[in-house]
Amino acid sequence: MQQSIDALIRLAFAEDIGPGDITTDSMVEDNVRGSGIVVAKQEFIIAGLKVAESVFRALEPDILVIPCFADGDRVDVGKTVLQVEGRLSTLLKGERTALNFLQRLSGIATQTRCYVETVADLPVRLVDTRKTTPGFRVLEKYAVRVGGGHNHRMGLYDGVLIKDNHIAVAGGITAAVEKARKAVSHLVKIEVETTTLEEVNEALSVGVDIIMLDNMSLDQIREAVRHINKKALIEVSGGVTREKLKDLAAAGVDLVSIGALTHSAVAVDLSMRITVSSAEK
Amino acid sequence: MQQSIDALIRLAFAEDIGPGDITTDSMVEDNVRGSGIVVAKQEFIIAGLKVAESVFRALEPDILVIPCFADGDRVDVGKTVLQVEGRLSTLLKGERTALNFLQRLSGIATQTRCYVETVADLPVRLVDTRKTTPGFRVLEKYAVRVGGGHNHRMGLYDGVLIKDNHIAVAGGITAAVEKARKAVSHLVKIEVETTTLEEVNEALSVGVDIIMLDNMSLDQIREAVRHINKKALIEVSGGVTREKLKDLAAAGVDLVSIGALTHSAVAVDLSMRITVSSAEK
Amino acid sequence: MQQSIDALIRLAFAEDIGPGDITTDSMVEDNVRGSGIVVAKQEFIIAGLKVAESVFRALEPDILVIPCFADGDRVDVGKTVLQVEGRLSTLLKGERTALNFLQRLSGIATQTRCYVETVADLPVRLVDTRKTTPGFRVLEKYAVRVGGGHNHRMGLYDGVLIKDNHIAVAGGITAAVEKARKAVSHLVKIEVETTTLEEVNEALSVGVDIIMLDNMSLDQIREAVRHINKKALIEVSGGVTREKLKDLAAAGVDLVSIGALTHSAVAVDLSMRITVSSAEK
Amino acid sequence: MQQSIDALIRLAFAEDIGPGDITTDSMVEDNVRGSGIVVAKQEFIIAGLKVAESVFRALEPDILVIPCFADGDRVDVGKTVLQVEGRLSTLLKGERTALNFLQRLSGIATQTRCYVETVADLPVRLVDTRKTTPGFRVLEKYAVRVGGGHNHRMGLYDGVLIKDNHIAVAGGITAAVEKARKAVSHLVKIEVETTTLEEVNEALSVGVDIIMLDNMSLDQIREAVRHINKKALIEVSGGVTREKLKDLAAAGVDLVSIGALTHSAVAVDLSMRITVSSAEK
Amino acid sequence: MQQSIDALIRLAFAEDIGPGDITTDSMVEDNVRGSGIVVAKQEFIIAGLKVAESVFRALEPDILVIPCFADGDRVDVGKTVLQVEGRLSTLLKGERTALNFLQRLSGIATQTRCYVETVADLPVRLVDTRKTTPGFRVLEKYAVRVGGGHNHRMGLYDGVLIKDNHIAVAGGITAAVEKARKAVSHLVKIEVETTTLEEVNEALSVGVDIIMLDNMSLDQIREAVRHINKKALIEVSGGVTREKLKDLAAAGVDLVSIGALTHSAVAVDLSMRITVSSAEK
Amino acid sequence: MQQSIDALIRLAFAEDIGPGDITTDSMVEDNVRGSGIVVAKQEFIIAGLKVAESVFRALEPDILVIPCFADGDRVDVGKTVLQVEGRLSTLLKGERTALNFLQRLSGIATQTRCYVETVADLPVRLVDTRKTTPGFRVLEKYAVRVGGGHNHRMGLYDGVLIKDNHIAVAGGITAAVEKARKAVSHLVKIEVETTTLEEVNEALSVGVDIIMLDNMSLDQIREAVRHINKKALIEVSGGVTREKLKDLAAAGVDLVSIGALTHSAVAVDLSMRITVSSAEK
Repeated sequence: MQQSIDALIRLAFAEDIGPGDITTDSMVEDNVRGSGIVVAKQEFIIAGLKVAESVFRALEPDILVIPCFADGDRVDVGKTVLQVEGRLSTLLKGERTALNFLQRLSGIATQTRCYVETVADLPVRLVDTRKTTPGFRVLEKYAVRVGGGHNHRMGLYDGVLIKDNHIAVAGGITAAVEKARKAVSHLVKIEVETTTLEEVNEALSVGVDIIMLDNMSLDQIREAVRHINKKALIEVSGGVTREKLKDLAAAGVDLVSIGALTHSAVAVDLSMRITVSSAEK
Repeated sequence: MQQSIDALIRLAFAEDIGPGDITTDSMVEDNVRGSGIVVAKQEFIIAGLKVAESVFRALEPDILVIPCFADGDRVDVGKTVLQVEGRLSTLLKGERTALNFLQRLSGIATQTRCYVETVADLPVRLVDTRKTTPGFRVLEKYAVRVGGGHNHRMGLYDGVLIKDNHIAVAGGITAAVEKARKAVSHLVKIEVETTTLEEVNEALSVGVDIIMLDNMSLDQIREAVRHINKKALIEVSGGVTREKLKDLAAAGVDLVSIGALTHSAVAVDLSMRITVSSAEK
Repeated sequence: MQQSIDALIRLAFAEDIGPGDITTDSMVEDNVRGSGIVVAKQEFIIAGLKVAESVFRALEPDILVIPCFADGDRVDVGKTVLQVEGRLSTLLKGERTALNFLQRLSGIATQTRCYVETVADLPVRLVDTRKTTPGFRVLEKYAVRVGGGHNHRMGLYDGVLIKDNHIAVAGGITAAVEKARKAVSHLVKIEVETTTLEEVNEALSVGVDIIMLDNMSLDQIREAVRHINKKALIEVSGGVTREKLKDLAAAGVDLVSIGALTHSAVAVDLSMRITVSSAEK
Repeated sequence: MQQSIDALIRLAFAEDIGPGDITTDSMVEDNVRGSGIVVAKQEFIIAGLKVAESVFRALEPDILVIPCFADGDRVDVGKTVLQVEGRLSTLLKGERTALNFLQRLSGIATQTRCYVETVADLPVRLVDTRKTTPGFRVLEKYAVRVGGGHNHRMGLYDGVLIKDNHIAVAGGITAAVEKARKAVSHLVKIEVETTTLEEVNEALSVGVDIIMLDNMSLDQIREAVRHINKKALIEVSGGVTREKLKDLAAAGVDLVSIGALTHSAVAVDLSMRITVSSAEK
Repeated sequence: MQQSIDALIRLAFAEDIGPGDITTDSMVEDNVRGSGIVVAKQEFIIAGLKVAESVFRALEPDILVIPCFADGDRVDVGKTVLQVEGRLSTLLKGERTALNFLQRLSGIATQTRCYVETVADLPVRLVDTRKTTPGFRVLEKYAVRVGGGHNHRMGLYDGVLIKDNHIAVAGGITAAVEKARKAVSHLVKIEVETTTLEEVNEALSVGVDIIMLDNMSLDQIREAVRHINKKALIEVSGGVTREKLKDLAAAGVDLVSIGALTHSAVAVDLSMRITVSSAEK
Repeated sequence: MQQSIDALIRLAFAEDIGPGDITTDSMVEDNVRGSGIVVAKQEFIIAGLKVAESVFRALEPDILVIPCFADGDRVDVGKTVLQVEGRLSTLLKGERTALNFLQRLSGIATQTRCYVETVADLPVRLVDTRKTTPGFRVLEKYAVRVGGGHNHRMGLYDGVLIKDNHIAVAGGITAAVEKARKAVSHLVKIEVETTTLEEVNEALSVGVDIIMLDNMSLDQIREAVRHINKKALIEVSGGVTREKLKDLAAAGVDLVSIGALTHSAVAVDLSMRITVSSAEK
């Protein structure tokens, strides 16, 4: 993950600093030192502390960075999240980029935790989708885990998900599953997207690992759960609100996938307060 | 901008497709063709049509992509936004990535338009901030313009913004502005962040181009506007809600910067419907 | 896969052509055209035709490349595998790189087919390992499939394989499996490496998807198969020779993994014959 | 060379670890330490110790890596080749990649040494070809040197090798050599590929530095050697087996090029044994 | 800036060292140490010391590099500019690349200083242009500042410069300026290129920030200065020689842009003297 | 070479256009077309036409580019060098970058031609050095050839050049040459730098291919030429002016290396005239 974090940080600095921070470079000498604290302006679940640290370290390898929480902790308003001590110019140049990562990832963790708590005691897994920011898949899925959610497949390469078009081309669910099973690694599970009980039954008869119930009503879902009867994992997808979650969980589904965990998370409110220390001799 | 779009698309495919779409590759031959339409599931302002087109074109250079709107148009629920005709496998592999870009950029444009309409007839510019997704600065700032907003500086390199720490190190606003002015290009404007009227006056006396009023009350802002009296552009920043916008505009400020335009936009609801055509002979 | 092919081709040209083909550049004008055929100097299974085509196309986008076989075909000695018509300089510059890819990938496909045919009628899958050339994982695993083999996990990211050190740290097989199951996506299967029947039984009791029998004797394997009794897939690994394959298959194991498919394949013998056509007017 | 090693290692980790080692990450904390030894399971010539070290160091800069041999040493069965002490997770993640490099490079060195020893006391140089794995040219040619062989040109850019098509286009050997000599640096030698004595004589008359005898019989080679009479270096190429090597050397040729040194080397058998130490406080 | 320096250094080593320094690698062991001094063979203004240091450090992170001057200092003939102590092989491999950077950047600084001194006491800024070496924009503009000059815009993205074709398309200077002002950030200044007094007046009436007088005679310039009368900054561009500079400055223009600062600077004469220390035990 | 040209063009656009050409983007629609001609403002030797063409083509693949000369031609003042027809925005965005390449490469070709003509009828080769702009080695050495010069080695990897420090470490010229000869490919020539006749004699006795006479007086050079007596190529290096060239050539040296060919070439004076055509319907 570090490799992909480093690449994103390089990208971020290229676009934010580019040829240079012309304000800071014109008046802050390299020997002026400073310290900074990142402060919570709302209650939230923190995610991305290592990324924030890596941002400052990319500018100044020996900088002192002290996280005051661990990813996954709930942070109250007013709390200090992270302390940094180094060159003032580093703090000024890295501040916005560090916060941009931290705010977005914490936003996802916070949103996820909120959903997760709705069904805290129920045996259901909330999972994310592929509706992530291009380039941030690994980080955003990490934030979902930090928030207490689980991950669906990472991409198109590490899980089979057979949808209507696949079925149409293959000539039915049975044919599609057999083609996939023959082609892919024995370590990969096979999931089929269904919209009717007939499809559920066909998927079941061919022994798929997971059956996705797509945009079904609660009644249909309950009936499907009875039919499937623990012979496959059951995922519900489509139009899931926090209100419906409890009913779904109670109905006995194993997994509920929610695009909003990533695509509709908003940045949490954090700010960085920087203080000038003195110039080194 | 195309260069940076292409780089993001490569990044997105690397993480989403990686070694291959194992479902599609196991059952969809390359000669099977399909068509797809992207459909609006909510009313919104569209942004990113060229990016979505580039996503499909990156997988199949000769694919037919027909946008049904232009960036900046308002799209009603149920409308078709984009049509694509090509290999079925291309549609299946590109769908999610194209939507991820389109949903996020349209989300920003829609959010921006919403703010902009609040002050539609007033002579104030709503501007974005550097609170953008790392790597997406150029695209997200484009979406803000599409929504009717304007851009603040692109990064730390193309505008001077003197903040409290800069002032502390330089030894006052006057010294800071003089240092910056001496160092930077004559094409670059100089803005100073102020929190009191004294600071406003000092900034004014040294002839800065823009004065930012940071987290001031509406009364303070009104007084500052009177003091400044058109001798510098006035930007208000911090804690701006849609409700306060009208008052700020009425108070005569030139610019209001709003981080939420980018950091709190949520994805608009779009889906892609794909139909299998027939296999080419 | 094309993205990773293109990257490898750029790498290959950077090291082979670099500043230029000084021989060809000093005497072959750009308007001299030629044609070339790739000829089999041994019997083999072909893999990599698209890669070879991409090599020439990277140097001359409009070049005419006609494959005479499809990946997976058996090619007899003396047969023409591929025809190319374009600039003579393209043929001379691309020849070695195209052959290097084709020879290596075909070597793997040929080696794999050879193993596969040993157990042609038996219900066992021969699978590859992670013992591949760094940077060539996707291509070499493709060649294994072309040869009739199957793929094990693509990397450390798309399948859980619990080995002795994992078990030691987690505090036993049961604890290890539970930790993994809790952390990873529901689409990922879990495999445990075992060396004794006790371990097999513990893995079985915790419901793993695949049990690897590592370096066991044939007798131990047979006993393990009886114990497992179809409740998990069985993979045999370690010291597998072509001779032992039939016995393993007969013993009822589902999967046999063989590092030699990739790490000990030798290049097949191919040559390219180039003919000068005439200069274009 | 380090720059190209680092690039290959990044490539290798991208494909092997990618989004993460899901097994290790789910149960091995960062503070658990381990040690590992790489052990020889066959007798071989070692090459690539620095690369293996770089693999582990890329994951953990301060890791302790102690090579027990130097590149070029003969290693007996059972010997420890390399010791590593660091985070257990580093060992588990780096093991396969380090071995993949080490096994392949040592395979080439071992194969080369085997050929070289056949003609140990004879004044002939065994040289490699451009038949290398794309992207590994520098490393594989290094392994050839480690094995006691020598390098032919690195690529198309650092030596002139005039082949039949060049001669056809230039209008004869003399014309081809003159064109090349005029165009290239004075530091570059010129070699011509010949298949008949007439061609040898023409090459000789125009003063080339090296004459390649391509696919000639032993008798033709002996005659060519007499004709050339030390006025140019003589390289024999094509269909060279270990059996024929002695005769060729005895015939007085200076260089024998052998594609098999790189394209048909098989991985040497190495394994890594990892032990869990204890968790750091 | 460091990010772009590092990228250029990697580029430089890739082309200069590539597969290896075959001379040094064949006879200088890694434990042989050396020291080197960079010596001035002409009087000049130094620029690029950090880049030179980064070159050696990229090869040997712990190398000792002691600059004897600071960028911007005037260096007399015979003076030592920089001392380096490290592995002899590092010195031999890095020497040429370090000098290539240092000579070019110092050449620009020296040339700039020479122009600047011509108008030392006059209130005019000498500014560079976009006539820089592709890829070296940031470094060459830094060298201009080191020499006492100032920077014009960094690229097409950070300043509006409206030229004849823009005016033609927009339908006049007024329309062009209004379009630009509406589109770009409030932090960006607007400059218009003019060739006649009419154009100057139109630019003035629409309130542009800077007026460029392109290829005007001295008389025209004087008249334009009177017209503009401090209401906009005035830049003179085109055919500026050192002789004309004083007249221009006396005429009251604010800025003179000179392409020659970068495109016609010649390398300053520096050499590096390397001494072998002894081999480390 | 095209691969390295494309990389430099990407670099150039990244720094010049970056987030966008804000002037052109704000007022020139994509359907406005234009034509442009590059015009000579001095007499010069042209080099880099393909690079200039590639610059425009990178922005608009189908653009019409018509070169009016071939690289190496002498161009008179006022002549049109290149015509371009395409989108006006392409012309405006590509103009400066295309000219920057063309002016620099033509500057080198012109400077080289000037030196070459001094010794036009004499059997001496003028060769370049490694004193090139980092990243531009391949292009600048191409420009030297276009100007009629020849290339010295491309980098440290494709020729052995033994200098004083190498000799000191190896223990004398003879030992150094033997070490190099043993290590490097048989295709690589060996050159030794000498400063005295004794060194020349030692180099000669060990049969080096080229002897460099470093900073010798004309008399010393003449004596060295007599000693060497055609048994090795002779290169003169150091402090060569155009005046001394004839004497050196007359003295019978084979090669004169001149750093100034690349490091002191100044940009030739070219401008581009762009005309607006009409907007496409």
